[in-house]
Amino acid sequence: MIETPDIQRPDPALIEGLRHVSSATASGELSRLGIRDPHIRGPVALTPGMSVVGPALTLQFMPKREDLYNVDEYADPEKQMHRHALYPTQPGDIVVVDARGSLSSGVFGEMMLTFFKGRGGIGVVIDGCIRDSPYAKTLGLGLWTRGVTPNYHAQTDIIPFAVNVPIACNNVLVMPGDIIIADDDGAVVVPIGLAPELLKKGGEHADWEVFTRMRLAEGGHLRKYYPLSAEAQAEYEAWRKK
Amino acid sequence: MIETPDIQRPDPALIEGLRHVSSATASGELSRLGIRDPHIRGPVALTPGMSVVGPALTLQFMPKREDLYNVDEYADPEKQMHRHALYPTQPGDIVVVDARGSLSSGVFGEMMLTFFKGRGGIGVVIDGCIRDSPYAKTLGLGLWTRGVTPNYHAQTDIIPFAVNVPIACNNVLVMPGDIIIADDDGAVVVPIGLAPELLKKGGEHADWEVFTRMRLAEGGHLRKYYPLSAEAQAEYEAWRKK
Amino acid sequence: MIETPDIQRPDPALIEGLRHVSSATASGELSRLGIRDPHIRGPVALTPGMSVVGPALTLQFMPKREDLYNVDEYADPEKQMHRHALYPTQPGDIVVVDARGSLSSGVFGEMMLTFFKGRGGIGVVIDGCIRDSPYAKTLGLGLWTRGVTPNYHAQTDIIPFAVNVPIACNNVLVMPGDIIIADDDGAVVVPIGLAPELLKKGGEHADWEVFTRMRLAEGGHLRKYYPLSAEAQAEYEAWRKK
Amino acid sequence: MIETPDIQRPDPALIEGLRHVSSATASGELSRLGIRDPHIRGPVALTPGMSVVGPALTLQFMPKREDLYNVDEYADPEKQMHRHALYPTQPGDIVVVDARGSLSSGVFGEMMLTFFKGRGGIGVVIDGCIRDSPYAKTLGLGLWTRGVTPNYHAQTDIIPFAVNVPIACNNVLVMPGDIIIADDDGAVVVPIGLAPELLKKGGEHADWEVFTRMRLAEGGHLRKYYPLSAEAQAEYEAWRKK
Amino acid sequence: MIETPDIQRPDPALIEGLRHVSSATASGELSRLGIRDPHIRGPVALTPGMSVVGPALTLQFMPKREDLYNVDEYADPEKQMHRHALYPTQPGDIVVVDARGSLSSGVFGEMMLTFFKGRGGIGVVIDGCIRDSPYAKTLGLGLWTRGVTPNYHAQTDIIPFAVNVPIACNNVLVMPGDIIIADDDGAVVVPIGLAPELLKKGGEHADWEVFTRMRLAEGGHLRKYYPLSAEAQAEYEAWRKK
Amino acid sequence: MIETPDIQRPDPALIEGLRHVSSATASGELSRLGIRDPHIRGPVALTPGMSVVGPALTLQFMPKREDLYNVDEYADPEKQMHRHALYPTQPGDIVVVDARGSLSSGVFGEMMLTFFKGRGGIGVVIDGCIRDSPYAKTLGLGLWTRGVTPNYHAQTDIIPFAVNVPIACNNVLVMPGDIIIADDDGAVVVPIGLAPELLKKGGEHADWEVFTRMRLAEGGHLRKYYPLSAEAQAEYEAWRKK
Repeated sequence: MIETPDIQRPDPALIEGLRHVSSATASGELSRLGIRDPHIRGPVALTPGMSVVGPALTLQFMPKREDLYNVDEYADPEKQMHRHALYPTQPGDIVVVDARGSLSSGVFGEMMLTFFKGRGGIGVVIDGCIRDSPYAKTLGLGLWTRGVTPNYHAQTDIIPFAVNVPIACNNVLVMPGDIIIADDDGAVVVPIGLAPELLKKGGEHADWEVFTRMRLAEGGHLRKYYPLSAEAQAEYEAWRKK
Repeated sequence: MIETPDIQRPDPALIEGLRHVSSATASGELSRLGIRDPHIRGPVALTPGMSVVGPALTLQFMPKREDLYNVDEYADPEKQMHRHALYPTQPGDIVVVDARGSLSSGVFGEMMLTFFKGRGGIGVVIDGCIRDSPYAKTLGLGLWTRGVTPNYHAQTDIIPFAVNVPIACNNVLVMPGDIIIADDDGAVVVPIGLAPELLKKGGEHADWEVFTRMRLAEGGHLRKYYPLSAEAQAEYEAWRKK
Repeated sequence: MIETPDIQRPDPALIEGLRHVSSATASGELSRLGIRDPHIRGPVALTPGMSVVGPALTLQFMPKREDLYNVDEYADPEKQMHRHALYPTQPGDIVVVDARGSLSSGVFGEMMLTFFKGRGGIGVVIDGCIRDSPYAKTLGLGLWTRGVTPNYHAQTDIIPFAVNVPIACNNVLVMPGDIIIADDDGAVVVPIGLAPELLKKGGEHADWEVFTRMRLAEGGHLRKYYPLSAEAQAEYEAWRKK
Repeated sequence: MIETPDIQRPDPALIEGLRHVSSATASGELSRLGIRDPHIRGPVALTPGMSVVGPALTLQFMPKREDLYNVDEYADPEKQMHRHALYPTQPGDIVVVDARGSLSSGVFGEMMLTFFKGRGGIGVVIDGCIRDSPYAKTLGLGLWTRGVTPNYHAQTDIIPFAVNVPIACNNVLVMPGDIIIADDDGAVVVPIGLAPELLKKGGEHADWEVFTRMRLAEGGHLRKYYPLSAEAQAEYEAWRKK
Repeated sequence: MIETPDIQRPDPALIEGLRHVSSATASGELSRLGIRDPHIRGPVALTPGMSVVGPALTLQFMPKREDLYNVDEYADPEKQMHRHALYPTQPGDIVVVDARGSLSSGVFGEMMLTFFKGRGGIGVVIDGCIRDSPYAKTLGLGLWTRGVTPNYHAQTDIIPFAVNVPIACNNVLVMPGDIIIADDDGAVVVPIGLAPELLKKGGEHADWEVFTRMRLAEGGHLRKYYPLSAEAQAEYEAWRKK
Repeated sequence: MIETPDIQRPDPALIEGLRHVSSATASGELSRLGIRDPHIRGPVALTPGMSVVGPALTLQFMPKREDLYNVDEYADPEKQMHRHALYPTQPGDIVVVDARGSLSSGVFGEMMLTFFKGRGGIGVVIDGCIRDSPYAKTLGLGLWTRGVTPNYHAQTDIIPFAVNVPIACNNVLVMPGDIIIADDDGAVVVPIGLAPELLKKGGEHADWEVFTRMRLAEGGHLRKYYPLSAEAQAEYEAWRKK
């Protein structure tokens, strides 16, 4: 029996609050909080329009080594670590996978993804691929991957290796329990310790941005409206009163 | 007059049977039959939702060499080998092209593709690009390419060189007459000699998969339902009776 | 106060005429006029179906160097050159950006793009990314980029450096004021000096192409209909009379 | 105080025996023992002519994350994991580093390498770079790296993260205590469990290879001498008697 | 019994004459004869200082396909096409290999290369690797490769497929019997039909180049001495008289 | 007559002082002065053992565009900008070239390099290649390039475009007149404004480093000797007295 650690889930209020923060706002604010680049390059939105916020379950793949991963083991599903990665799923979870950028391995297929969805999972971020993509796209999960493939998870060059350990998802370190904010611009990792600060900064709603966008769309000048110049400030306040 | 070989087409029953086998099922089964990776990486679905199964006509490009391919030759369409690749087209054929991964060459444009479609061709798999893509996507052909380009086939770095010879389509060897199975997960090459075996394996419909998928979607556990545990087996049989 | 040059805009009739020339026709004809490869590889259509023709405003990014670009400067928006790139926008303009192929920098976000659209801009071609893509795609601009990112323009490795200077947009040299023709096949640069010649060549409408396409779709042979053989010529003329 | 595990070192006789096995022989034999590709691609010989065999200490780098690795920590050398990787060094050890292929980080410099050599270390294999290379090359260590750089280990994009854990050294999984065989052809990982078998196979000296090489050099034919044909067998035995 | 074609060897006087033409001179002159880029990018000099000129034997690798290349076949050396590539070797021959840029396959090892040398072969150009490199470098052959590896030729992803057919050696088309000129700057393919013309152009010795180089080394100006200005012409003629 | 700007050369004392600072020391100190990565990745030492310090002349290449760079212009050497880049050479100068990473263009050949050496130039850093490398390596210049090629500077895809303008040398911005420090670890750009500060920091000779290196080589522990512990401090002072 394989035992893997679960993650510590964040205060639901934190997740709720961050739901109003886009990946773009998050990345910019995290940059100001000292994180140079929180964006996971490589995985792109496979389900355009989906946007998710939640804690990260992590799964690490390693290069395949035949002495450690033979046919007999494959015959015993319970030894497959990519299954174990999904076992602790709770509603609102996001699974993040270091699949080493492989385009030859379909990390999850329809059955795994259906199970994950059935357990309440909401998003999948993989530095690699899924398979059974026509079906997977209909599940209502948010999917961010490098692509799709017909190959199964351990068919060629990588094997699932560890669950809920720190992983490198391409250029970004993800700790189990960090928060993921993902939408059409991509997936951003929010270190759990910085999440409250991000919530404070990212949540400051900018009423004037609505006004600015409107004026710019009408042909107004950046110099005047973005950011608001002193002259535009008065105009904005008049507009807001209405 | 250029003479090129035609391919030997498979038993229609074989194609008919394989129509029910997805690229994902095919890749997994071929892996078990000893083919490590039958998936052609690089070309991706340009016409999402299309899925095709058929025998491969092949076309090989080579690096352009000006002493072999000059302006005068270009003036004589009958010397263009990419035309000859399409001449033997029969209904149900798929053309597979080694275009050396080039993003600077549009292997086929609207006229070639219209002709191919008019002759009954159903799919195009190119380790490279097409052009006239807005029109091409409306033809009803399945298209798998690395991308699109406005350039014509021999504009920059490659030239069409040979028809119905063994080709390397990126990481996969394709023999003329092999069977291609392509859908949104990608294109898989089925060596013609393994096709009957694949048909047998891939065609074993798994009634229980429908049941399993349903249970997983309802929150059932992988351990119980995938594969079916002894406990779930009884439940499945009861369900099937209904 | 930063002063940057404006571009010289072409005769509106030239633009009007080229509106009927696809990027594929343009690339082929420019090739025959001596330009080996006018296609900007890398940026792809982010707004499928959009097609634009117009003069190029140019913006050059350079690798970030902290002694030249520090936080204090960032605090003063007027020193941000990517804003200045958009200031001279006139109706029908296209902005072309050498962003060094970066996938870590969102060259423009919603505010910049809204301003550009508000001023009459019609297209954006970037050897790099934008951010706020869900909103950006709704603006009615034609967008050709390498991808999207949540990062802001100077967050990681590049900074905006110069406006309306000659730039390298990946593999293609773009001079300020050159004409861009972009559609789903990609973006092509028309050197301003060659534009009148291209207009002449590319505009020669080929009535017979409609006929040929129809015949090919019906199963007619390339040899007969493309180009028109002597035999098909008569058939075509009969058809045209109707 | 940071505690990291040490490795279990192999029977010295095993190492002694494998010293007569080249990386080429090892790779071929491991392939026949079921390991598809034991060669670590990427690192190449920086000290041509050096050849080493020994157990692997491992060091894992991860993407830099500023909230986990700030300037203050850097000020305390004892928190630097790349130092800890070398602390357990015993004579004959080889350190293997997953530096994520980075060309921007010099994993070890002169002081680290001098210490490693002083403790009896014999080889360094890095999927990344060293710095202070002019000095490093004179130390008498065998060095296999992707290149050299003037940057220090944590200057840009990666940080040392864990010691003597399983690592991915580019395409190969290395377990702490596996045996490394490295020479001018590259570095090969021998899973410790397969080492005795490799010793048996790789150690079978082929007297006839000396004979064959001589005959081929004189213009003898491959068909006759490699492998030895029946005809050549007699000739070989006559030669051996002399 | 496998039969493969031999190549037609050029007039020895042609080879003799081209021996005085460097790869740099050849590339420039071929460019003026209409060949845009005759340089095979990828393979670099493994044996610095060696320079060879001779006709090309060609060998084509293809992606490995397990149904066509199984263990039993490997057991029969005579079915190995990379052996057949060397069988027709005559003194002065150069073998050129399309190994698909693979860094995981050692196309030739010590025995093959010793045989090739024993038969009079002088150079090896591979878009891929060799193995047994320490020994190979001592053989007196000129070697141009992408690198070295301990793996054998068919260990991982490619297999030898055809002998003396047209091949793509990375970016260049090589016809069997074309002439190769290779030195420290790299390997250039001279289409056999252009060889006489190249000999004429490349062989025009420029006496004044010696003079120019001397003057430039002394601090003379490019404008005056390269090419020779009218003023320098007189100086040169005076120098030549001495 | 083409006029290009010259650079402002630094105080000779600055160069003299920096001659004792290695690229590794420079990169580390510049990092502490706020420059994240001053190392030009890509170009590597072609002349091992050479080390140079001097001001940067800059040369920018752009993608080739046939309407701007035709055969006739090539016929007039004075229009070749890569010649103009070398005209202002003064003793101690280093020329830095953005050749766009091209492996198909030999930026300088023997004549250009001989002239540069004759004028007192000491180093060449190219994000691209040179040609005539066997001769070039004997000139006594320090050369850092991506490789070598037989092709001439404008043969394929790039053309020389501007002299002594700001350039991007791969990942680093170089301003004309910045200082280059290059040795076997690579080439580092020192922004001219930071050079005095670097001189101060990098020049602080660390006597104890000699002592530390000695102790480490003898098997001393990093913890004790690097940096010097209190215990080692006394030992060091005793050693220094001798």
